[in-house]
Amino acid sequence: MANQALEDARERAAKVLNVPPKCLFFTSGGTESNSIALFSNLTRPGSGRVISSMGEHASIREGMQTLSKMGKPVGSIAIDRAGMVTAETLDSALSRYSDARFAVIMSVNNETGAVTDIASLKEIFKKRTTNAPARFHCDLAQAVGKIPVDITGWEIDSASVCAHKISGPRGIGLLYLRKPIEIFYAGGGQERGVRGGTENVQGAVELADCLEAAVIGAVQREEAQNEEPAEINYSSRPGVDEEYKRAMTRWNKLITELLAMERCALIPDTRTAGDSRFSPYILQAAFKGIPGEVMARALDDLGIAVSTGSACSSSSPERPVLAAMGISENLRIEGIRISQGWSTTEEDIDFLLNGIAEVLKFL
Amino acid sequence: MANQALEDARERAAKVLNVPPKCLFFTSGGTESNSIALFSNLTRPGSGRVISSMGEHASIREGMQTLSKMGKPVGSIAIDRAGMVTAETLDSALSRYSDARFAVIMSVNNETGAVTDIASLKEIFKKRTTNAPARFHCDLAQAVGKIPVDITGWEIDSASVCAHKISGPRGIGLLYLRKPIEIFYAGGGQERGVRGGTENVQGAVELADCLEAAVIGAVQREEAQNEEPAEINYSSRPGVDEEYKRAMTRWNKLITELLAMERCALIPDTRTAGDSRFSPYILQAAFKGIPGEVMARALDDLGIAVSTGSACSSSSPERPVLAAMGISENLRIEGIRISQGWSTTEEDIDFLLNGIAEVLKFL
Repeated sequence: MANQALEDARERAAKVLNVPPKCLFFTSGGTESNSIALFSNLTRPGSGRVISSMGEHASIREGMQTLSKMGKPVGSIAIDRAGMVTAETLDSALSRYSDARFAVIMSVNNETGAVTDIASLKEIFKKRTTNAPARFHCDLAQAVGKIPVDITGWEIDSASVCAHKISGPRGIGLLYLRKPIEIFYAGGGQERGVRGGTENVQGAVELADCLEAAVIGAVQREEAQNEEPAEINYSSRPGVDEEYKRAMTRWNKLITELLAMERCALIPDTRTAGDSRFSPYILQAAFKGIPGEVMARALDDLGIAVSTGSACSSSSPERPVLAAMGISENLRIEGIRISQGWSTTEEDIDFLLNGIAEVLKFL
Repeated sequence: MANQALEDARERAAKVLNVPPKCLFFTSGGTESNSIALFSNLTRPGSGRVISSMGEHASIREGMQTLSKMGKPVGSIAIDRAGMVTAETLDSALSRYSDARFAVIMSVNNETGAVTDIASLKEIFKKRTTNAPARFHCDLAQAVGKIPVDITGWEIDSASVCAHKISGPRGIGLLYLRKPIEIFYAGGGQERGVRGGTENVQGAVELADCLEAAVIGAVQREEAQNEEPAEINYSSRPGVDEEYKRAMTRWNKLITELLAMERCALIPDTRTAGDSRFSPYILQAAFKGIPGEVMARALDDLGIAVSTGSACSSSSPERPVLAAMGISENLRIEGIRISQGWSTTEEDIDFLLNGIAEVLKFL
C-alpha cells in the first residue's frame, strides 16, 4: 500500500516533469540528489574529469572538493558577471579540459537568479565530447515550478529537484537520471539501488502535490484528479506560467523602486526591471555602507526575512559565487538576497521597500 | 525561528539520550547516519582498516562494499548463531586485523532481535587498539526506545538513531558523534558541516517528540513540557522500561504458542520465551515447507504485515545475515520476520497466531 502510494507519487511527478517515471528517484532533497549524481563519478569506470560552474550551489562546490580529495580530476567553468555560464565560458573550459566527461551547470543561480540557457550549453557539451561518453548534470532546484523547464528537450543526463523551493516540505527531493548510473553508495537498495533508506512516502506524496500545483496549477490539478485538495493549501496556485507573470510584475516594481534608491546597487549592476535573463524569484542587492549581515538583522527585526547569500552558505562570509562573478569585496559584504514565492503579494513588496527605507534612515 | 525550533529539538533529543546537544546531528535517517560515520574513513588521515559485523544492516553492508571499491581495507567480524557479535568473535577479528581502526557493531540485530553487549565489546576494542586512535560505531536504530541504551556509558564514538523505528516520521534521524570527525561530504555545511541540505525542522521536532514519548514516556513528557500533546498521538506511551515489559509479555505469548506449532522453528532455534538476549520487538520464524515469501503474502491477504528479512533487503533473496549465522538454506528461504511496536495489543498477537494457523491448514 505504501509502495503503491510511492509509485503513484512518482508517476504524478513524472507527468509534471514530462519524463518517464522510471527515471525519477526520491531523495531527501536537492543536496542529496546533487551528491548522488556527482559521486557516481567515483565509481564510474574509466577516467575523465568532472567540471562544474563556479556559480553552483554549495552542495556541488563541497562535492567537487570531496571528489578532488579522492583523487578525481576536477575543473571549473567560469561564470560571467551575471552569474551565468555562457557559450564562451563553457567553450573555454572544454578547451582547457579536453578530458571533461561530466559537467555540472545549474539552471537558475540561487544567489542572483541568473537563468542559464541549458539547452544551448548541453548542445555545445555534446558536440565537444563526442569522443567518449560524457554526462551533463543540471541543478533544477531553483527552476522547476519557477521558470519553464524541459528536461527531455534539453537532453540533460541528470537533474536535481527539491520540494521546499516550491513551498513543499523539507526533506524530500527528486533525482532525474536519463540512464542508470554507477551508484557510489546504494544503502539498503531502495529506489532501485539509487538511494538507500526507508522511503519517505508522505514526503513523496506531498512533493508530487506541490509539483502539480506549482507547474500545472492547483485548479487544473484538482479537476484532473477529481479528489480532495492536498493537505497543504495550494488551492490558489495558478501554475508556472501565470505565477511567473505575477512574480515578474511584483519584481519589476521592487527593482524599479530599489534602483531609485541612491544607496542601492543591484548585483549584477546590469540587471533591470523586466529583465528575463533573471528569475523573478531571486534578487541580489547591496546597500552602500551597510554590511549585508546588518541589513538582514535590521529587516529581521521588522519581520522581513532576507539572507546574505545562499542560506546554505550563510555561515561562510566569503560569498564564493559573487567573487567568481567579479563582484568587488565591498559589494560582496553588502549583498543581501531577496526572494519571493508564489504567495508573496504586492503588499509584501511594499512592506519590504518601506522596511529598507526605514533602515536606510538610521544606518 | 526555524533555527530556534531546530536547536530546541536537538536539546530535547540530547536530554533523552543523555548526551551533549553538540554531539547530535540531524540526518535524513538511519541509513544516512550510518553512511556519514562510515565514509568519514575515506577522508580520515592515516591508514587503517574498517571492520564491521556480518549482522549489520544493508546500509552498512553496502557502505563497506563502497569503501572497498575505493581501496579502503575492510574486514568482517563474525556473528554467532543468534546473530550476535561476541567477545570471542570480536577478539578473533581483531587478531586477524591488527590494523583495524574503525569498528561497526549494531546494538539490536534487525533480523533476529539479538541484543549485543555493546559496552563489553567497546571495552575489548579499546584495549586492543591502544596503539592508534580507533573508533567504534554503533547502529542504534532498533535499540533506542526499545531497550535501555547508554551511549555515554558504553563509550561509543558514533551512533545512528532513526525516528520511524519508534513510530516517528520517515525521513529523519540522528547521528551521534562523540568527537568531530573528518566529513567525507559536507554539502551546504548545515548541521555544523556534518550533514548538508536544508534542515528538516518539522521532522526534527517530531523526532524529539517521539524520542521523548518512547524513552521517557508520554505522560511524563507532557507534564514536563506543560503544553499540548504532539501532533502524532503518543499520549498513552509509557516509556521504554514499561513498554519493554509489555512487549516482552506479548512476545512470550507469541513465542510460546509458535513453539507449540509442529511446523514452526524459531531462528535461532535456541530462542525461548522470556529470553532477554533478544529484543521483544523482533522475531525470526520459519514454517516448514512454506517459503517466507508465500507465508508473507498469505498473511498479507489476512491483513497482517510480516516481512522476509529486513525490509531494506526485501528485494534480495540471499538473506546474508542469516547465512552468516550459519542458518541452513531451507530455513533461510522459510524465514519471516515478525515485529511489533508499542501500540501492538494482545489481540493483535492472537490475530497473528490465528492467521498463521489458518495458513498452515491450507499450505
